[in-house]
Amino acid sequence: MNKFAPPKRLQGIEKSVIRQMLDRARPGSINLGLGEPDLPTPDVIRRAAVKAIVEEQNGYTTHSGLLSLREKIAAEYPYLENKPDQVVITAGSQEALYLALLALVEEGDEVLLPNPAFVAYPTIVQMAGGTSTFYRLPRENGFAFDVDEFRRALSPRTKVIVCISPSNPTGRVLSRDDLVSIGDALRDHGAYLISDEIYRDLYYTPERPGSLSSFYDRTIVIGGLSKSMSMTGWRLGWLCGDEAVVQAALVLHGYVTTCASTVSQKASLVAWSEEAEQARSGFRETFRARRDHLLSLIDSELALKAAAPEGAFYTMLDVSAYGPSMKVAVALLDQGVITVPGVGFGSEAEGFLRVSFCAEQDTLSEGVRRIKNGLQDLQDFSR
Amino acid sequence: MNKFAPPKRLQGIEKSVIRQMLDRARPGSINLGLGEPDLPTPDVIRRAAVKAIVEEQNGYTTHSGLLSLREKIAAEYPYLENKPDQVVITAGSQEALYLALLALVEEGDEVLLPNPAFVAYPTIVQMAGGTSTFYRLPRENGFAFDVDEFRRALSPRTKVIVCISPSNPTGRVLSRDDLVSIGDALRDHGAYLISDEIYRDLYYTPERPGSLSSFYDRTIVIGGLSKSMSMTGWRLGWLCGDEAVVQAALVLHGYVTTCASTVSQKASLVAWSEEAEQARSGFRETFRARRDHLLSLIDSELALKAAAPEGAFYTMLDVSAYGPSMKVAVALLDQGVITVPGVGFGSEAEGFLRVSFCAEQDTLSEGVRRIKNGLQDLQDFSR
Repeated sequence: MNKFAPPKRLQGIEKSVIRQMLDRARPGSINLGLGEPDLPTPDVIRRAAVKAIVEEQNGYTTHSGLLSLREKIAAEYPYLENKPDQVVITAGSQEALYLALLALVEEGDEVLLPNPAFVAYPTIVQMAGGTSTFYRLPRENGFAFDVDEFRRALSPRTKVIVCISPSNPTGRVLSRDDLVSIGDALRDHGAYLISDEIYRDLYYTPERPGSLSSFYDRTIVIGGLSKSMSMTGWRLGWLCGDEAVVQAALVLHGYVTTCASTVSQKASLVAWSEEAEQARSGFRETFRARRDHLLSLIDSELALKAAAPEGAFYTMLDVSAYGPSMKVAVALLDQGVITVPGVGFGSEAEGFLRVSFCAEQDTLSEGVRRIKNGLQDLQDFSR
Repeated sequence: MNKFAPPKRLQGIEKSVIRQMLDRARPGSINLGLGEPDLPTPDVIRRAAVKAIVEEQNGYTTHSGLLSLREKIAAEYPYLENKPDQVVITAGSQEALYLALLALVEEGDEVLLPNPAFVAYPTIVQMAGGTSTFYRLPRENGFAFDVDEFRRALSPRTKVIVCISPSNPTGRVLSRDDLVSIGDALRDHGAYLISDEIYRDLYYTPERPGSLSSFYDRTIVIGGLSKSMSMTGWRLGWLCGDEAVVQAALVLHGYVTTCASTVSQKASLVAWSEEAEQARSGFRETFRARRDHLLSLIDSELALKAAAPEGAFYTMLDVSAYGPSMKVAVALLDQGVITVPGVGFGSEAEGFLRVSFCAEQDTLSEGVRRIKNGLQDLQDFSR
């Protein structure tokens, strides 16, 4: 009997650094490693879900999802011209990302990813048989987008590019100028662009961040309600964009999950209501206050640098003075505080920790106190 | 600009024959083509879902799913010895099937499938880069399992085998002798077996059909609540079995969907309660009565042969006297009744239609009346 060996597409794929940290954390730890909002799902969503469960039978929807929901999503993106056929509802934005990459990437294709970036990107590229290359978001510039780095990394072999704004892990947002630059850089090239906009409604800039889909035609948008409506466990996401690509993704989707949860789809229909809009805006205010609180503590208590997040709920804390990010993160685990070492997101984030603010202000204060103790220990030890 | 061409894994994959039929159906058609129970999801499940939504926050579960739910599932399969680590909860049994095949099949591997079989099998094998071969379930024997055909088709190159019982599309159930024969045939071979048991609780045999996992170690079971609890839209399935394979599938699952809907997972915890058991048993009785009604009409009204289903909710109607199954199914569409041409399930089912009994008895009667008219037309035309 042969021993089981996974196929090439799954070989060498290990637990993400985030999960490794969670696994090693001791009980009672403060979790600043998480990417999940702690705020309750708005009542308006819950009521709609209960109504659907009590009053209706919830069978399969079409593979692409409820037309009424796809219409609402299509209306979010002017370039779709309200074409719901170019929207597929998925089991969370994770499935949307998986489908988009598997529909676009052929064995051997090059995919250009941000460095640092969400850990799933290079992993799924490997699963699709592709090769990852990277454009640098320079740490010395607070991980801001740099069009020269972007253009330099773009090669004739680049088949697909991934952008994310607001960014996981940096919290940075692509400005209007950045969006224009990206569109300009790609227009003659013709590569497909996957724009991960899962954090789009969690922003601290004066304006809601724009969608790359308005600046470049061959864009596939990844979106969802997990972060902005605190619906992570509901698994409701979408992809939309270029008709041919979306059709290929839809075929795959039918064989991967058939359709997203019908209960979650029906509940999501009210996510564009006034009550939901108020909840969304309240969430933003809560996260903004937490962000300000955390940044102020980082300055006053730790006297360290951190990128000021313009969106999402992460900041990148510069701990390079204390050693490699993995060593620092492990030392903090001993103090009962979970963070994610930057190295898990790419070489550019080495020397940083991703610290999330999905926790109440008191918890953030206690978390920073523990970080301070941990860094103190590292300093004493290295003397 | 290049035109978009999907990667090899998705090339040539077309709409399933089932979907083609649904797309061509005229309004007001009677749908005997569906694989979806029409009975309402039991109250006990709905109440549990409502409670979870109203009283709890529903964030991500671990990738593998709620431990309490995995414990209940593990207890279903004696060979798992109650090891919940060998269970992954998925977004419906469709995702479980996708994960199992992608975790097992390497580029170029041969996968042995039943003929006829569920249309998704060869399609996902192609997506995984594998090649499909087939073992015949002989039509002349009512599509019953034939161990000689099975052994003949098994080759040293066979890496994975798929069995399904009760079967979609035939409604046949593997007997205890069949299960023993399959285990015996595979024991020295060492291939992995995917046992699709999504219809296991919809049976009309005296005993609940056995699980192949009790007869062969290297079995990955595919299961779920969609059919037995009328929960198709809730997307709740699972895979379980061999530890190494399940771990590989779990890694993939994390990148494909993260986790199944938390609301659906919590609601499913009561699917092993006495009240749910009563609902399941009531569903079986309803489907058995419909089955008997349909078979009696096929005999009395159509004077045709059909395999008597021992499980699931499909029968295979022999229309070979009227021409190719596609031609017959299209002619019936004109009469306002949807069936699925057997050719969509494999060459062995050519000359048959899959007729499902997910409809009330009156609807079945009207459906058979329309089938009769359609067949009459075909006969008149061919004279």
